[in-house]
Amino acid sequence: MHYSGRRVRWGLLALLALLGTRMLHAQSNEPLNVMPLPAKVQRGDGALKIDSGFTLTFAGYHEARLDRARQRFLRQLRRLTGILLLPPSKDAGAATLTVTTDHESKPTQELGEDESYTLDVAPAGAKIHAANPLGALHGLQTFLQLISVTPDGFAAPAVHIEDQPRFPWRGLLIDSGRHFIPLEVLKRNLDGMEAVKMNVFHWHISDYQGFRVESHKFPKLHEQGSDGLYYTQEEIRDFIEYARDRAIRVMPEFDMPGHSTSWFVGYPELASGKGPYSIERKWGVLDPAMDPTEEKTYKFLNEFFGEMARLFPDQFFHIGGDEVNGKEWDANAKIQAFKKSRKMKDNAELQAYFSGRVQEILAKHKKTPVGWDEIFVPGVSKTIVIQSWRGTEALAAAAKMGYRGILSNGYYLDLGSTAARHYAVDPAGGPAALLMPEQKKLILGGESCMWSEYVNGENIDSRIWPRNAAIAERLWSPEGTTDVASMYERLNAETQRLEWVGLTHRAFQRTMLQRIAGPASPTEFGALLSLAQALEHQKEYTREDSIAVQQTSLSPLNRLVDAVYPESDFSRQFSLLVDRFVLSAGKDAVLEAQIRAQLADWTTIDDRLRPLTLRSHLAKDAAPSSAAFSQAAKVGLDALDRIRKGAPLSDDEKKKQLAALQTFEKQANQSQLTMPELPAFQELVEAAGNAPKLN
Amino acid sequence: MHYSGRRVRWGLLALLALLGTRMLHAQSNEPLNVMPLPAKVQRGDGALKIDSGFTLTFAGYHEARLDRARQRFLRQLRRLTGILLLPPSKDAGAATLTVTTDHESKPTQELGEDESYTLDVAPAGAKIHAANPLGALHGLQTFLQLISVTPDGFAAPAVHIEDQPRFPWRGLLIDSGRHFIPLEVLKRNLDGMEAVKMNVFHWHISDYQGFRVESHKFPKLHEQGSDGLYYTQEEIRDFIEYARDRAIRVMPEFDMPGHSTSWFVGYPELASGKGPYSIERKWGVLDPAMDPTEEKTYKFLNEFFGEMARLFPDQFFHIGGDEVNGKEWDANAKIQAFKKSRKMKDNAELQAYFSGRVQEILAKHKKTPVGWDEIFVPGVSKTIVIQSWRGTEALAAAAKMGYRGILSNGYYLDLGSTAARHYAVDPAGGPAALLMPEQKKLILGGESCMWSEYVNGENIDSRIWPRNAAIAERLWSPEGTTDVASMYERLNAETQRLEWVGLTHRAFQRTMLQRIAGPASPTEFGALLSLAQALEHQKEYTREDSIAVQQTSLSPLNRLVDAVYPESDFSRQFSLLVDRFVLSAGKDAVLEAQIRAQLADWTTIDDRLRPLTLRSHLAKDAAPSSAAFSQAAKVGLDALDRIRKGAPLSDDEKKKQLAALQTFEKQANQSQLTMPELPAFQELVEAAGNAPKLN
Repeated sequence: MHYSGRRVRWGLLALLALLGTRMLHAQSNEPLNVMPLPAKVQRGDGALKIDSGFTLTFAGYHEARLDRARQRFLRQLRRLTGILLLPPSKDAGAATLTVTTDHESKPTQELGEDESYTLDVAPAGAKIHAANPLGALHGLQTFLQLISVTPDGFAAPAVHIEDQPRFPWRGLLIDSGRHFIPLEVLKRNLDGMEAVKMNVFHWHISDYQGFRVESHKFPKLHEQGSDGLYYTQEEIRDFIEYARDRAIRVMPEFDMPGHSTSWFVGYPELASGKGPYSIERKWGVLDPAMDPTEEKTYKFLNEFFGEMARLFPDQFFHIGGDEVNGKEWDANAKIQAFKKSRKMKDNAELQAYFSGRVQEILAKHKKTPVGWDEIFVPGVSKTIVIQSWRGTEALAAAAKMGYRGILSNGYYLDLGSTAARHYAVDPAGGPAALLMPEQKKLILGGESCMWSEYVNGENIDSRIWPRNAAIAERLWSPEGTTDVASMYERLNAETQRLEWVGLTHRAFQRTMLQRIAGPASPTEFGALLSLAQALEHQKEYTREDSIAVQQTSLSPLNRLVDAVYPESDFSRQFSLLVDRFVLSAGKDAVLEAQIRAQLADWTTIDDRLRPLTLRSHLAKDAAPSSAAFSQAAKVGLDALDRIRKGAPLSDDEKKKQLAALQTFEKQANQSQLTMPELPAFQELVEAAGNAPKLN
Repeated sequence: MHYSGRRVRWGLLALLALLGTRMLHAQSNEPLNVMPLPAKVQRGDGALKIDSGFTLTFAGYHEARLDRARQRFLRQLRRLTGILLLPPSKDAGAATLTVTTDHESKPTQELGEDESYTLDVAPAGAKIHAANPLGALHGLQTFLQLISVTPDGFAAPAVHIEDQPRFPWRGLLIDSGRHFIPLEVLKRNLDGMEAVKMNVFHWHISDYQGFRVESHKFPKLHEQGSDGLYYTQEEIRDFIEYARDRAIRVMPEFDMPGHSTSWFVGYPELASGKGPYSIERKWGVLDPAMDPTEEKTYKFLNEFFGEMARLFPDQFFHIGGDEVNGKEWDANAKIQAFKKSRKMKDNAELQAYFSGRVQEILAKHKKTPVGWDEIFVPGVSKTIVIQSWRGTEALAAAAKMGYRGILSNGYYLDLGSTAARHYAVDPAGGPAALLMPEQKKLILGGESCMWSEYVNGENIDSRIWPRNAAIAERLWSPEGTTDVASMYERLNAETQRLEWVGLTHRAFQRTMLQRIAGPASPTEFGALLSLAQALEHQKEYTREDSIAVQQTSLSPLNRLVDAVYPESDFSRQFSLLVDRFVLSAGKDAVLEAQIRAQLADWTTIDDRLRPLTLRSHLAKDAAPSSAAFSQAAKVGLDALDRIRKGAPLSDDEKKKQLAALQTFEKQANQSQLTMPELPAFQELVEAAGNAPKLN
């Protein structure tokens, strides 16, 4: 599930034009503040006022799920506006919003069901029309997004919308294996998914570090494999109902034959090694793997799948299949003999055998198997769905051969990429763009992945949101929806709305910083906050490169690295200022003043923070990054001075300053942090090397 | 329930010494960061480390409530530290914390039960000892407060504590009548009460504007009197259990014979007027009152009390009794005839008759009546408890005659006083200080009151906390605990801890401001935030003096006035700076620079905010206060310039500037806001009138 790549800065220049003009266009025909953008939008005249008389009624097909959606909608409306909505009086006239639904949807939500809706807003009232409740639920979310504060109160602009998704599979994977994520946290993430119209919750529910499902058949799985941190079957049933209420399917993943140490704590007979096993605390690709040569393994899985197939009603069942290093197989003479007797030339063939057997069992339980790239081997059944961590090439190649697939490469939220970078990834892009139409249909969509090495219930929201909304738009909106500046603007609005939904992706930070600081003066705390807002956690798989002791699943997630955002808005805005300033050839004095004030403030962070580092071990841990960042800002400030003075840096000086910046970045890495301002600082140094004489 | 009084600035000078020295004393023998302060504290050497191996066990008497307290304690410990606590292994040694309880407490918590505990923390472990679970629960809270971040990790300092409350009745009243407050909000306030050892939740649950309890006997009470916003009996039972788990009694208040319109919507036959009645939307002392002359009134109340006496197991039952204006009685000929026939000379006598009858009924249901001052009339039974909105004089007078009382005058949280002002109010202070010891015992304690004209579930936490913690300390800690500077320092720490408890008294603000702003640039939003942090809502009963249309219970609470804090920390800190600067005779250049930077920033708020006021009606509503505040800051800045230049203001100029400040304050009042910086601005102007020549 790994991919490599270098972090790229997204197209800042695209934003330049926007920033200067957006306020002028507030009332114009620019894209609605809706995310994901609907397939078709036609603006009308005027707006529908939203006040305490607002009412919502249903027409056509009806079910209890719609009533619950109504309650949820009204609660959200109250939160968004602060308006008290009273029960409608009996002699009320026409409803403000009427939702008409033609017929029911499937009892268990299925892939490819109709999710379309139309939405008409006029000054006199609004209407949603949908074939089934799925579309109705989506339409309600769009309507909520249309509501905004205006000079005359809250209102939704007149508009005609026809909308349906581009891809039928729009998922979010949350890994409850490496760190247990409490149900209430998962539930509010379902609320977030509903808001952006994602429809698959992929529950990665077992891994080396934890087995998180209660099993009645094999109770030692959760009793011995979870540290007591697991979901009961009753909780899971309730969770699936909660998801269905929000038009979301729930697909479980039991990763095998690797990623399965937690199974072996209670049932070592399943493993290829000798045991005994204990719950893993470290990360990475580890040795333990199921024994694919023993019939008792398949007997166990058959019984276990039987129980889980009833618990999880979804048609699809994910069996993992990734990252088997084969060491336990190689070390086991019996397994070697088995391979020989079957003329298997490598472990890949052995795994293919295992995978085939598991798929047969699943078929018996009437489930469609889903797995990572590794399950796609010659001759495998065409019913499978391939989830690709490798990329669009792999997906396109499989589609050419008639296999269905979903993309996750490019959507790994844990790697800390920018929303823009995720946004640029298209499941049907790259080589898939050249597929025949009927092949293209085999590309079902994509899934963002929240692997949980470095997150728990406290900070996971901030790693998923708001960036996940950009991925949701990619999977829902028409192919041509690629305006990054518009995406960021709408993402900013969505971030705020998601707070009303109950997500804590922003609110989590202040309390975490207070924990780090302990009792602090405003100056001290202000410095910590500025630092946290300027820095990001390290990207890709580099987080543990610069630290002496590897993190484990028992390491507290209470440090600065755990409290920063993966993408700093602050940094993006600063970079934007620097780009514009450099474009002005250093002549824009207003920009210069803004940049100077910001840099000057940053240079003081380390001094202001120092008293904290003497009192708190958590602040002390952040000290290297604080020192590095203040010094890097000083390099930027010095460059700015040179530009101002018209005294260019010599090539040697420039080289020295650029090298210094690299050193500071490495120093920040000691706290597992990175300075996203680095390219902007470099840009200033470069510009100082060619500084025009200004005065 | 009204009292008058002028807002006073609390003793800023007391803080001056502190601010300069607190960091030096971080490791010294200063008061522990505990609130309320324990009765007796002895510091020891060293500290107990808190890490992932932390364990808690119970000894002695045990019950399920203690297990739940343990779960809650561990969850809170995880939140405070971010440390993952695993289930203890079977061969674990001695527990980190052992809690020994001697015997059970009363099945229904009673007034005056033993709440004492001792707590010993040593580097090797900690022990709590309590007579019963009430003391154990209190001890656990104290232990949590002792934990802080240190240079070597989290730790609790070595200490010996012997603790018990000064008063047995330490309450918080929440008014669910005027605005319905959702149960989840009430529950998190119980969590907050537990943290500061308050032990009575006074549930003001019916009023003109709403009847909030489900009644099986008289269902039209909640069906017609609540807009559908009421608590079911099942919810109430669950809530009472939740409170008992936290050592908190729940006392209901059914206010009568006034404050009762919501009863009459469904049961107009109870009223003295003709009806029909509808739920009141306005505030104040209104006319409707029960008919005290009809036997059917008492028959109704007897049956109703029977039902409620079973629902609310507490010994005490509050019957209100306040603010009957008598208009309906005067206008009813039958009632006039009744008074005449009984030789009653005024409505007070009629109310005394009603009150006596109601108390007889309560006695039959084995409840002890509690009521506001008005129920204290000659000859009334000595069993009653008087809750005094009038003040300590009334309480002392009653105690002299052998009546028990609790104080609420001085503890009205809705009036927006400072924590220091509440802290200065002592139930056994003033005339009560002169009582004989056995009379003094009749003063049971006090209750803070959160009347809900201007709050709902969204902002009520911010009106209660943190100030309520200062009142809690007054009611728990020894009489001599009066150091305001220490109180504020510990209050600041407690404010942070209360966020981990789940209260939203700080977190509520940003989302409310986002709603006001709509999509906004950082500059715009920053201006709104600065404004919100600088201003407070108007005090006492003046909030509606300057506005054209009276607010009602249907008015949205989504304006700036609803989003500011009742006591601005920002303003307090600024005032402190100005005090120190003036004390330095204008000679301290560092202070001057800080004050100047703050004032300069404030002068720009109005310009930065203006674009928002054109786009959002909610921002527009705040525009007068924004303009006023920026101009007032400019007056302060001009004064500072005069001091700097050594060019004193003439008496005329000074008078003009002071008058201008008054005008700006009035202008801010148009948004129901007030500028707590006004005295500091005035101080600068006064000082500029006597400015020493500096250069």
